[in-house]
Amino acid sequence: MPKTNRQWLLKARPAAMPSEADFELAETPVPEPGPGQFVMRASVLSVDPYMRGRMRDVKSYVPPVQIGEVMTGASVGAVVASRHPDFKEGDIVEGRFGWQDYARSDGRDAGARKVDPSLAPISTALGVLGMPGMTAYFGLTEVGQPKEGETVVVSAASGAVGGLVGQIARIKGCRAVGIAGGPQKCAYVKDELGMDAAIDHRKARDLEAMTAALGEAAPDGVDVYFDNVGGMTLDAVLARINLHARIAICGMISEYNQAELELAPRPTRALLVQRARMQGLIVFDWLKRYPEGMAQMAAWIKEGRIKYREDVLDGIENMPKAMLRLFSGENFGKQLVRAAPDPA
Amino acid sequence: MPKTNRQWLLKARPAAMPSEADFELAETPVPEPGPGQFVMRASVLSVDPYMRGRMRDVKSYVPPVQIGEVMTGASVGAVVASRHPDFKEGDIVEGRFGWQDYARSDGRDAGARKVDPSLAPISTALGVLGMPGMTAYFGLTEVGQPKEGETVVVSAASGAVGGLVGQIARIKGCRAVGIAGGPQKCAYVKDELGMDAAIDHRKARDLEAMTAALGEAAPDGVDVYFDNVGGMTLDAVLARINLHARIAICGMISEYNQAELELAPRPTRALLVQRARMQGLIVFDWLKRYPEGMAQMAAWIKEGRIKYREDVLDGIENMPKAMLRLFSGENFGKQLVRAAPDPA
Repeated sequence: MPKTNRQWLLKARPAAMPSEADFELAETPVPEPGPGQFVMRASVLSVDPYMRGRMRDVKSYVPPVQIGEVMTGASVGAVVASRHPDFKEGDIVEGRFGWQDYARSDGRDAGARKVDPSLAPISTALGVLGMPGMTAYFGLTEVGQPKEGETVVVSAASGAVGGLVGQIARIKGCRAVGIAGGPQKCAYVKDELGMDAAIDHRKARDLEAMTAALGEAAPDGVDVYFDNVGGMTLDAVLARINLHARIAICGMISEYNQAELELAPRPTRALLVQRARMQGLIVFDWLKRYPEGMAQMAAWIKEGRIKYREDVLDGIENMPKAMLRLFSGENFGKQLVRAAPDPA
Repeated sequence: MPKTNRQWLLKARPAAMPSEADFELAETPVPEPGPGQFVMRASVLSVDPYMRGRMRDVKSYVPPVQIGEVMTGASVGAVVASRHPDFKEGDIVEGRFGWQDYARSDGRDAGARKVDPSLAPISTALGVLGMPGMTAYFGLTEVGQPKEGETVVVSAASGAVGGLVGQIARIKGCRAVGIAGGPQKCAYVKDELGMDAAIDHRKARDLEAMTAALGEAAPDGVDVYFDNVGGMTLDAVLARINLHARIAICGMISEYNQAELELAPRPTRALLVQRARMQGLIVFDWLKRYPEGMAQMAAWIKEGRIKYREDVLDGIENMPKAMLRLFSGENFGKQLVRAAPDPA
């Protein structure tokens, strides 16, 4: 076992697009558990779009990462030492353990939960059977409330959340339209994930083109929009919403690296005319219902009705690079970093 | 009885603020009812902010008025001739009879309903016991969903809808904050309507000032915003919303006369962080529940818990002038025009 703990610290707050220079790799001693604590070793770490928000010094639904602190994020791995009554050595745990090889936790501070490695590869605890999976499941079913025969549009449709949203929409009997970047991702959305239509946002680059593309892909209009990207795409969807449409605001990755907020027409006129709803969602609001969501997703995976795709970089030294891939759209599926082999 | 029917026709589509020159007063013969029709004589006519939208040649939730057509709008008065089985001579009726002294209708085309003149002055069928009253009642209770102890903010708070929203919020056990224009309206909102605080938007003229004023008037943040005005006021409220806030989009009178849409920051970030909801409402969606809403409002009026105020211009020749008062904020209470005395 290594003697040092590699940790990624936040070094600077980027004004626009982050770069690797905004992070610093530190080496510290592997921590020892105190009373009521355990130490876990990360096998797989997650990078997610929300992390960009944590680099900003503004109040959000959780506090920002401070300069010099370990970057926040989820990982999964085995407990390697424990003085905690509920987490034993060898247990597989998932939680917000940060960008580091080893994390010391009392369980609660990291929202730690045990993972059953017999269910699926443990990396899925960071994806389809974790936060992104629950976001897709509860966000679509509770906020989007799709009804059979309706049209559901989802952006970032080949991504960790969007890929699941489109498939759940199909399971619910809806027409699913995915928006993704490039022909390869669009083919994946249609051919692998089974969505009814795909829109390539690299072709539909402006409001007019996106509005036209939506008119073709969603000829009966949009009943539910699950928005992961914000920006112009949202403006275009608003021009296509149906009576009593529901727009679930899950993310706005196209806006995260803007130094200055882009101005846009207010969405209120479209919402008023169509008596439509726009609602923000954060998955933690359904934390108590995770078991229900996990069981449903696991069942659909087993039945072959839900597919997922992982994009894994090797080596914890690649964490910043992995995160930057989210913003360039280079990642294809859930972006992960492998820091160590899965526990035996 | 007069031999001619005075009718206000739409003459031109204004690009920005309408003027009296956009309307034309025509005189036509008083109509006779055909089979299944009746003719009513308007005693009181309503002007409402939505009428500005009907002057625009764009698709909305109802079609626009065509050039040369009678302007759309509601009035109340007596049936003066009838070949309709359900509407008898002398019945008091309210409906979308247009800007004219006499209207011929089959009932359905105007959404006509009978009004009980023993309940309250018949003009209330255009206000507190009509469309504005139902908008306030269903919009606040169904879309705003206020809970005891929460803070409800309403704009155009001395107006036909806003004045009722604030009072219903108080009845529901909420802190009510009204936004109105000028010290006289603000005093009315607090002293007459009993709202807990009033903000004068003529003093809080920009985003910063309005955000600060909201911070003082709603120190615990905003749980429900009932929006009648849109624009900068909405942007300011978004900076003050609480977790799971509900924003009811009822109107945007501050934007109706803009020749070009004003751009603004997207509201999505605030909605996401606070998992808040923004929802458009149009009162016709609760048409089947009007009897329930009417009964409740009538009971509250009888109990002295709901007050209302009318602002009446005399003479149908003043219809355009009355409508323009809505946009200048000159009206104080529900704007009406009296065309003839109430039927005996």
